[in-house]
Amino acid sequence: MANVDMLWSGWGDPERAERLPDSVTGLLRELLGVHTEQLAQPVKLAEIEPPPARPVPGALEEVVGAEHVRADAETRIRHTRGKSTPDLLRIRAGDAGGAPDAVVLPGSHDEVAAVLARCAEHRVAVVPFGGGTSVVGGLAPEAGGFAAVVALDLRRLDRLVGLDSVSRTATLQPGLRAPHAERLLNEQGYTLGHFPQSFEWASIGGFAAARSSGQASAGYGRFDEMVTGLTLATPSGTLETGRAPKSAAGPDLRQLVLGSEGAFGVITDVTVRIRPLPETRVYEGWLFPSFSEGVTAVRALAQDGPLPTVLRLSDETETMIGLARPDELGEGNAAGGCLAVCGYEGTAAEVPGRREKARAVLTSLGGVYQGEEPGESWARGRFSAPYLRDALLDVGVLAETLETAGFWSNLPRLYDAVRLTLSRELPSSVVMCHVSHVYAAGASLYFTVVTAQGERPLERWRDAKAAVSDAIIEAGGTISHHHGVGVDHRDWYAREAGPLGVAALRAVKDRLDPEGIMNPGVLIPAE
Amino acid sequence: MANVDMLWSGWGDPERAERLPDSVTGLLRELLGVHTEQLAQPVKLAEIEPPPARPVPGALEEVVGAEHVRADAETRIRHTRGKSTPDLLRIRAGDAGGAPDAVVLPGSHDEVAAVLARCAEHRVAVVPFGGGTSVVGGLAPEAGGFAAVVALDLRRLDRLVGLDSVSRTATLQPGLRAPHAERLLNEQGYTLGHFPQSFEWASIGGFAAARSSGQASAGYGRFDEMVTGLTLATPSGTLETGRAPKSAAGPDLRQLVLGSEGAFGVITDVTVRIRPLPETRVYEGWLFPSFSEGVTAVRALAQDGPLPTVLRLSDETETMIGLARPDELGEGNAAGGCLAVCGYEGTAAEVPGRREKARAVLTSLGGVYQGEEPGESWARGRFSAPYLRDALLDVGVLAETLETAGFWSNLPRLYDAVRLTLSRELPSSVVMCHVSHVYAAGASLYFTVVTAQGERPLERWRDAKAAVSDAIIEAGGTISHHHGVGVDHRDWYAREAGPLGVAALRAVKDRLDPEGIMNPGVLIPAE
Repeated sequence: MANVDMLWSGWGDPERAERLPDSVTGLLRELLGVHTEQLAQPVKLAEIEPPPARPVPGALEEVVGAEHVRADAETRIRHTRGKSTPDLLRIRAGDAGGAPDAVVLPGSHDEVAAVLARCAEHRVAVVPFGGGTSVVGGLAPEAGGFAAVVALDLRRLDRLVGLDSVSRTATLQPGLRAPHAERLLNEQGYTLGHFPQSFEWASIGGFAAARSSGQASAGYGRFDEMVTGLTLATPSGTLETGRAPKSAAGPDLRQLVLGSEGAFGVITDVTVRIRPLPETRVYEGWLFPSFSEGVTAVRALAQDGPLPTVLRLSDETETMIGLARPDELGEGNAAGGCLAVCGYEGTAAEVPGRREKARAVLTSLGGVYQGEEPGESWARGRFSAPYLRDALLDVGVLAETLETAGFWSNLPRLYDAVRLTLSRELPSSVVMCHVSHVYAAGASLYFTVVTAQGERPLERWRDAKAAVSDAIIEAGGTISHHHGVGVDHRDWYAREAGPLGVAALRAVKDRLDPEGIMNPGVLIPAE
Repeated sequence: MANVDMLWSGWGDPERAERLPDSVTGLLRELLGVHTEQLAQPVKLAEIEPPPARPVPGALEEVVGAEHVRADAETRIRHTRGKSTPDLLRIRAGDAGGAPDAVVLPGSHDEVAAVLARCAEHRVAVVPFGGGTSVVGGLAPEAGGFAAVVALDLRRLDRLVGLDSVSRTATLQPGLRAPHAERLLNEQGYTLGHFPQSFEWASIGGFAAARSSGQASAGYGRFDEMVTGLTLATPSGTLETGRAPKSAAGPDLRQLVLGSEGAFGVITDVTVRIRPLPETRVYEGWLFPSFSEGVTAVRALAQDGPLPTVLRLSDETETMIGLARPDELGEGNAAGGCLAVCGYEGTAAEVPGRREKARAVLTSLGGVYQGEEPGESWARGRFSAPYLRDALLDVGVLAETLETAGFWSNLPRLYDAVRLTLSRELPSSVVMCHVSHVYAAGASLYFTVVTAQGERPLERWRDAKAAVSDAIIEAGGTISHHHGVGVDHRDWYAREAGPLGVAALRAVKDRLDPEGIMNPGVLIPAE
């Protein structure tokens, strides 16, 4: 898979594109009134003309070798923006505006550092590019005023640098795609345990830069919790962090790099906690009478334990549609209620006891055990929703996701605010939600919206997204639990971080990247 | 206790001063060759003359009220430096150099903000003062070039602002001393679970500012892991953080405030995770044949579980001296080996199973169960070591602690480097060590050094401490696991953070505190 390029116009392996099942086309007709002819096909790749490539000053070929600087149209198009639904709508329509002038593929930390130094000298904007899976405009800088823009594709930095079996840490290069990293660790008996929906295509560097969180975060933690050290190449030099798992020597600089989204520099290695490969994996389904009862139950596990490795609760709509089980989509539970998926991974000695105790908690709080099939069905389809989105785009349906997080006591308010806003902004849409990351103090809410593309889908979505982002900030939530900020969330992030938070980050950026070449406009709002 | 002032010349409650047990005086004679007459008594408080108080410009009385600005000698002396052994040696000798010109006691966030604004305008240095327990020079700024220096004593900010029983969080003011905070939470059925050795006197704000870690960190986490939000008053305005337990919206700004040691501003509230009061508490002792075997055992619990709530392992020397059990000091285990203390706190339903599983692990790795008495003895004496230090100072003995942390694979090297350096620098001394904070990837090492004061003890300790700090940095450890940086560790912190790390923090400071009035010289090295 590491050698296959992702579908330029959509998600994933071009060979795996899916047709919508009949059950879904029926649902779409019923719920959204859309017809399901293939009416919104993408243009052909060869027909797209990106804007003329400007020459890139700084002779970057001298640093990385001529074969690692590419300016052909296809390579540039493949590095244009990311994988949000608006990104796909635009690229499918042949809009490659903002394509980088060149794509540069460094082969080492030193090459990254040298490229940054030359780009700073020549005012060339740099977009760090890992898996290319950003859904928040993290790869779409605002590069006006620069001599040129290069995408710094890190795919050649794809080694497992070292594995410390005593400390249970591994040092990984940023361009390693997650399945490749996982395979390298598996070969030595370990797992990272980081499985976001983007798993099949996202990169280790991207996980760090965007503070990723995976579907098994209840058991393995968020990516930022796994990181014990990282190296950041900046235009002003190199920052190395991570002498100890935890320290009281000043603020945790790792946590300043995690989430910096390429705005300070390029992450050139990441040391992460690893764990022994689980001996046992089992997933199961539970049904709750209502979302609020389900939330109470998952909160009980998050606060008092025992915690499953995967813990996910769909609301009534998502359960009805069956989105938690993509291979049975449209055949959701007609009986109502809310489906929860609990997954247990660990040793054969440990899992049964944990599972049994969690079952007692869930049962006592109104959950009804549904057997393993709903859980295994979720596990089979866990990475396939983005493929489904492509199939929906083909038939004129817009599907997009957004997410937030908050404290348990505020979750109902946040949930209502998002649903109310979306139903007001997009009257004939289906809005689904699940809780998929739990903490002792709160949880994330992940929303999926499906609506007819209609006229001007980009503008409709832009307006709806702005309104719902307002609603999230006003209801006290964070603008992103795991997608990040990019350019899409930047204005709301400014409200979340506040003027002084923005000022602090801007000060760091000005010091590490005085020419402002690093992913300009991403993450950090103007003061 | 909240209304008692700490002993000005030493630790804790003046009524609780302890005499050395005969067993200890015997040990001291034997090991260090010191006589144990009371030969090094402190001067009298009334005899100390602090340097003349400069007038403080800015009319701070207008902000906080005249009764909350104090410049009497005793108040100033009580706010001079902290509680490191060199701090005590100096104050006991009557040296109140560096006493603040005044002590200001604000009553609200707004008063703090207004004081900072006036101090910035008039170039008055500000030392945030919580419990006054810093052992790294965190209260000893380098305030040359300022019009005056004030200690900002936060004791009036001592309220539990709110408790969210659904999210299990509480918002606490920074001047709350830990026992008071704990009592307020206990009254509502909760505990914070943060019990550092300084517990009886340290403050909530200090825990946050210095990234504290408590004796029960295995079970309850470090203080920085408990914090879900905080408010920071700076000379440039207020920073509010914490909309969700976790977020991908940019770097975690909470982690930039935690550990900032007053160099960016004053923490005016802290929201922390709380937990139900444990129904069961039990502590027990284990004996391992050697420190390395004990380390292997505690690592097994940290990596594969189950984790006790308290997990602490003394090396051979500390076990022999009996320091883990202060009420039986000098009656340590003559049979050799290394004592581990395991504590379990939790529900009556959960503790026995966890304890039983941990016992199986410890036994399989060479541990021999010692019953509950050694654990309970540790628990009784857990906050009393600083009292013992005062008694040692009285008889001409210098006792001091230092600590670091590293990854498991590097721990033996770190341990050897520190011991070797101390034994070289302080030839007739006793050096003891314990592991008291464990993580999946590594642990802390906490050293206690006891030596005769001899001639010029301050200079001797300064040189030894510099050498051992060099050794820690060279051996790859962090300069502090939980004491912090202050001014004492600043030069080594510069090496740990590296020039770019320092530059990033300096940039933040310059933006939030452009006049540089906040705890000048603490934490942040010159670039």
